[in-house]
Amino acid sequence: MKAIVQHEDKLVVEEVAAPEISSGEVLVKVHAAGVNRADLLQSKGHYPVPAGASPILGLECAGVIEDPGDTGRSRGERVACLLTGGGYAEYVAVPEGQLLPIPEGFSFIEAASIVEVACTVWSNIGMLAGLEKGDTFLVHGGAGGIGTFAIQMGKSLGATVAVTAGSAEKLETCRQLGADILINYRKEDFAEVLRNRADVILDIIGAKYLPQNVKALAPDGHMVTIGLQGGVKGELNLGLLLAKRGTISATALRGRDVADKARIVASTVDNIWPLLENSQIRTQIDRTLPLRDAGGALRALEEGTVTGKIVLEVLGE
Amino acid sequence: MKAIVQHEDKLVVEEVAAPEISSGEVLVKVHAAGVNRADLLQSKGHYPVPAGASPILGLECAGVIEDPGDTGRSRGERVACLLTGGGYAEYVAVPEGQLLPIPEGFSFIEAASIVEVACTVWSNIGMLAGLEKGDTFLVHGGAGGIGTFAIQMGKSLGATVAVTAGSAEKLETCRQLGADILINYRKEDFAEVLRNRADVILDIIGAKYLPQNVKALAPDGHMVTIGLQGGVKGELNLGLLLAKRGTISATALRGRDVADKARIVASTVDNIWPLLENSQIRTQIDRTLPLRDAGGALRALEEGTVTGKIVLEVLGE
Repeated sequence: MKAIVQHEDKLVVEEVAAPEISSGEVLVKVHAAGVNRADLLQSKGHYPVPAGASPILGLECAGVIEDPGDTGRSRGERVACLLTGGGYAEYVAVPEGQLLPIPEGFSFIEAASIVEVACTVWSNIGMLAGLEKGDTFLVHGGAGGIGTFAIQMGKSLGATVAVTAGSAEKLETCRQLGADILINYRKEDFAEVLRNRADVILDIIGAKYLPQNVKALAPDGHMVTIGLQGGVKGELNLGLLLAKRGTISATALRGRDVADKARIVASTVDNIWPLLENSQIRTQIDRTLPLRDAGGALRALEEGTVTGKIVLEVLGE
Repeated sequence: MKAIVQHEDKLVVEEVAAPEISSGEVLVKVHAAGVNRADLLQSKGHYPVPAGASPILGLECAGVIEDPGDTGRSRGERVACLLTGGGYAEYVAVPEGQLLPIPEGFSFIEAASIVEVACTVWSNIGMLAGLEKGDTFLVHGGAGGIGTFAIQMGKSLGATVAVTAGSAEKLETCRQLGADILINYRKEDFAEVLRNRADVILDIIGAKYLPQNVKALAPDGHMVTIGLQGGVKGELNLGLLLAKRGTISATALRGRDVADKARIVASTVDNIWPLLENSQIRTQIDRTLPLRDAGGALRALEEGTVTGKIVLEVLGE
């Protein structure tokens, strides 16, 4: 099969052996593969590949089942897939628990753009932090791929959504998606604006925002860190956290085991797929590129010129 | 009624007005009142009294209902009580949701010794962190009032229990209560002994132990800080926490609202009372003192010469 292979800092299409499936896995013929920031980090050697995972980039895709193995699934079934790696290729082996239906009315490209972000945001904000109607939900980086999804999800669940972003233009994007409280972090301290008010915080910054996030937390609030763009080691005021009965979690989806991923995928389909199918959450696709332009896709991500997702078209390479 | 009143740094018995009950409250005639470290902090001005709470010391008691108000309870019913204050007195007003039955076979003194620690440890370790059979449970200060309860509760739930303490004698106390892994913190680094192994941590130290606690956490581990004997501000490595999908909570029971306390009390009675009644958890009473010796009780706590609880005998003062 064709797949993206890395030589030094170049990503090129090469012929490689197709993956073999194990018990409980299906072989999927990939039509479209989503591009994520983690792929960029992995290509730079900053994201160690979990044991047993494909060394090929790519954490999500959509396509059709080529070989159902022993799962009882059907050849030709259209599926979206949460991957531990291997999406930038013509074929990928996928544990059955990581298969999702294509949301009704979605193309392969749209489906491939939504799996990783939906599973990440729902598992952290819905399943872990328990966002509820009436909560105030603070989303950092509101105009990014995760942020745009999180704003729409928060509004669908009945939360008041506050966002931080670095420009009036980005904040306008957030406002159009439904955000209620718009904070330009270059001009305002979000901890002052939201002091003691944020019931749930979705954080992609890490250390740099830790003291402010604790200030912003409401009583019984829960902050979840899923990115570390502002560093790893920060000062935590446990006295302030205790006075609020606050909770801080930090998580990543990729290292979870197959059973845990299956649990998350099932809950995401139950809770998020209806919101995609009735357009309460819309996927934001910046551009599609052919598989051979994977390197260009990652460069665009790195340059910060992307608003929404990049998806690679794989079929036909 | 008689109650303990503070003059400068002296605690003396004086006649004060008995509390009036509001709708949903009962008036309890106190037979015995438990002494807690929070009382010591409050008497020194280091623990602000929550709005609306009695200024009188005392977070737990046992006695009989003197006036059931509009609750439908019966006059003369024997009860244990979780209090927001007011236990060092002949009478106290208690919201109905904070009444617990006296565990079968328990005296008033034994019942008054167990309410605060049971509700605190169960709400954090059972309800919040979800300790399960087979988990490794790290308890700091294993020989203290909270620690001795937590060891027994952890063993009852089927956990492997690790403890830290500062002397061989204290560790022997922990061993006799069932602790499996004994760590003298003066001789060993608990983070090295337990690296990546602690599914749940009950922490009373705070800042000083924060980096070590994060190292000790297992994948998907949950640490709960309920005391800050080692300071409030510490360094948190969010990168390490993220790699483990770890969670840190910090909580206190006293500031919770009436509905939240009622939820905790009900779950504690359901889950912990059977363990008290079949002696899987035994209360550790160091000594009983008359109400008028409340000052002496707090001095003993401060001097660190107490192993187990001090209970004040109130009836008959």
